[in-house]
Amino acid sequence: MGGVEEPYRLVKEALKRGKAVVTANKALLAYHRYELQEIAKDTPLMYEASTAGGIPIIGALKNGLSANHILSIQGIMNGTTNYMLTKMIKEGAEYASVLKEAQDLGYAEADPTFDVGGFDTAHKLLILASLAYGIDAKPEDILIEGIESISTVDVSFAKEFGYEIKLLGIAKKAQSGVELRVHPTMIAKDSMIAKVDGVMNAVSVVGDAVGETMYYGAGAGGDATASAVIADIVDIVRGNTTPMLGYKRGLEGRLELLSEDKIVTNYYLRMEVDDRSGVLAQITKVLGEFDISIESMLQKAHREKNRVKLLFTTHKCTEAKIQSAMAKLKELDCVYRDIFMIRIEK
Amino acid sequence: MGGVEEPYRLVKEALKRGKAVVTANKALLAYHRYELQEIAKDTPLMYEASTAGGIPIIGALKNGLSANHILSIQGIMNGTTNYMLTKMIKEGAEYASVLKEAQDLGYAEADPTFDVGGFDTAHKLLILASLAYGIDAKPEDILIEGIESISTVDVSFAKEFGYEIKLLGIAKKAQSGVELRVHPTMIAKDSMIAKVDGVMNAVSVVGDAVGETMYYGAGAGGDATASAVIADIVDIVRGNTTPMLGYKRGLEGRLELLSEDKIVTNYYLRMEVDDRSGVLAQITKVLGEFDISIESMLQKAHREKNRVKLLFTTHKCTEAKIQSAMAKLKELDCVYRDIFMIRIEK
Repeated sequence: MGGVEEPYRLVKEALKRGKAVVTANKALLAYHRYELQEIAKDTPLMYEASTAGGIPIIGALKNGLSANHILSIQGIMNGTTNYMLTKMIKEGAEYASVLKEAQDLGYAEADPTFDVGGFDTAHKLLILASLAYGIDAKPEDILIEGIESISTVDVSFAKEFGYEIKLLGIAKKAQSGVELRVHPTMIAKDSMIAKVDGVMNAVSVVGDAVGETMYYGAGAGGDATASAVIADIVDIVRGNTTPMLGYKRGLEGRLELLSEDKIVTNYYLRMEVDDRSGVLAQITKVLGEFDISIESMLQKAHREKNRVKLLFTTHKCTEAKIQSAMAKLKELDCVYRDIFMIRIEK
Repeated sequence: MGGVEEPYRLVKEALKRGKAVVTANKALLAYHRYELQEIAKDTPLMYEASTAGGIPIIGALKNGLSANHILSIQGIMNGTTNYMLTKMIKEGAEYASVLKEAQDLGYAEADPTFDVGGFDTAHKLLILASLAYGIDAKPEDILIEGIESISTVDVSFAKEFGYEIKLLGIAKKAQSGVELRVHPTMIAKDSMIAKVDGVMNAVSVVGDAVGETMYYGAGAGGDATASAVIADIVDIVRGNTTPMLGYKRGLEGRLELLSEDKIVTNYYLRMEVDDRSGVLAQITKVLGEFDISIESMLQKAHREKNRVKLLFTTHKCTEAKIQSAMAKLKELDCVYRDIFMIRIEK
């Protein structure tokens, strides 16, 4: 990531001279938070503004939820993509037109990759994952998918089956490690985080004692950022002295990042297939080979004759299995083009 | 309030001997928080569990939002009443039957007055109002109304006009002081706090810099309370040393509690009137005398012949004016029984 090394050098220098540092630089922290903590020792390094803007989520994880083992975090931490997805869901608008609109409104950059590709969300997720699990991972280490391939077909399927589609940063304790992933996600529309619309951000945190909590607010903007930066300065002056990354690395020290193929969740698949008898049997046979069973299905006429769109959701399976099944499905003569997948959180 | 004096004595004694105190006793704080702060001085007195259970709202107001002047707080801080109102709104159930159900489920006490009458919410609101405004008020000083008189007619009106009904604790900075009030409230159903259903709690806080933030989670239950109590103990051990009631009393020192009659908001009125021409003219004439104008209106047939139910909302006016208008309306021959009012927040 270009642009991080110079701030890293400056912050290191300040910390070495015993100067407290307040930063909103999420990329700096996504790459160097553990080295910085090492150098900082007792010198405060605060970064509330780096993640979800004015929402005091860093403070909540460091202090407010300190009694909890964190079971999961689900965050809408990029206002641009949430604005776009809200427009697509509520108004049935196409991806390209909402991107154009977001750019005209100044929500999206001319090159929108950092936002729509999920990288901005990933930086923030890594910061939260350190506070919740003590996990030291870099953006390259985790699953990151953007919202670029979501179509109006997916949106209407989601509506019909009671889901919203949100770009979520997810950190989740599994049996053998911690899942860290950023991707468009279908979530039940009556869950609290599904109700967060427009440019707003929210982070849902489930603790083993407290249950689900959620923190909602503006994720960007000068005033919201200033609110977080000044709160950090006030905390330094007051001597509120929780270490930069909290204590979880010691407490949850045995937790490791789970490799992508071990992620377990439900999946939505969209594919185009020949409109003839026997096709569905071929597809379910391939899924069966990987122990994947279908939960719900919808077939839609395609604009080209003799083809249909097949949309379905699966019961829980591993990422390894769904990826292998998708690769094998693509080889079938009756399946056209790419197969598109969205993960579902239940 | 019976039952507060003995804990008050015990806590005072502990503080005087320099012992840190962690309490979940909201009534103790609603009545004695300023005396306790006076006695505590630098000895920690922590009370995160007193308000909205496991939601770290005290920490958010003391530290996370320390850079903000707080413009308003709206809190759903009583799970029992939120459960009941959710049932009434979603299922069209009657008050009496949902109260019975809440009692059977153990959500409501045999004597439910403390919850449904709004007193529990008021205790918590007073604690938050100290952190936000430095206001020293007691439950007797503020407007408290419960949900006991809400009928299915009000619920269907709310639905038809795009409102939810929630029992809110509201603290709001007005031009000449701070409004503190607890009452059933009609709020736009697309606002975040309107989307909080069932036994869950949430507190929306609007800051001048950060804009609206919201904090959501379980408001009661042993584990959620323990989560907050232990977080307080951890904060004491870490030396996180913000004073018990924060700094707002010094910063916002000129703010005073606004008297009830100066509250300004929109109102919903329900009344039964004779079903004959000229009645509406009589009613609007009385409203006009107090400069109150009608925003929307609905007329419903009543089960008794020759009567109708008149439901309407007003534009903004003072509490003094609406109360005077209601008193005068009651004296009209064409108006039957009591007039029922719900405040609206926009």
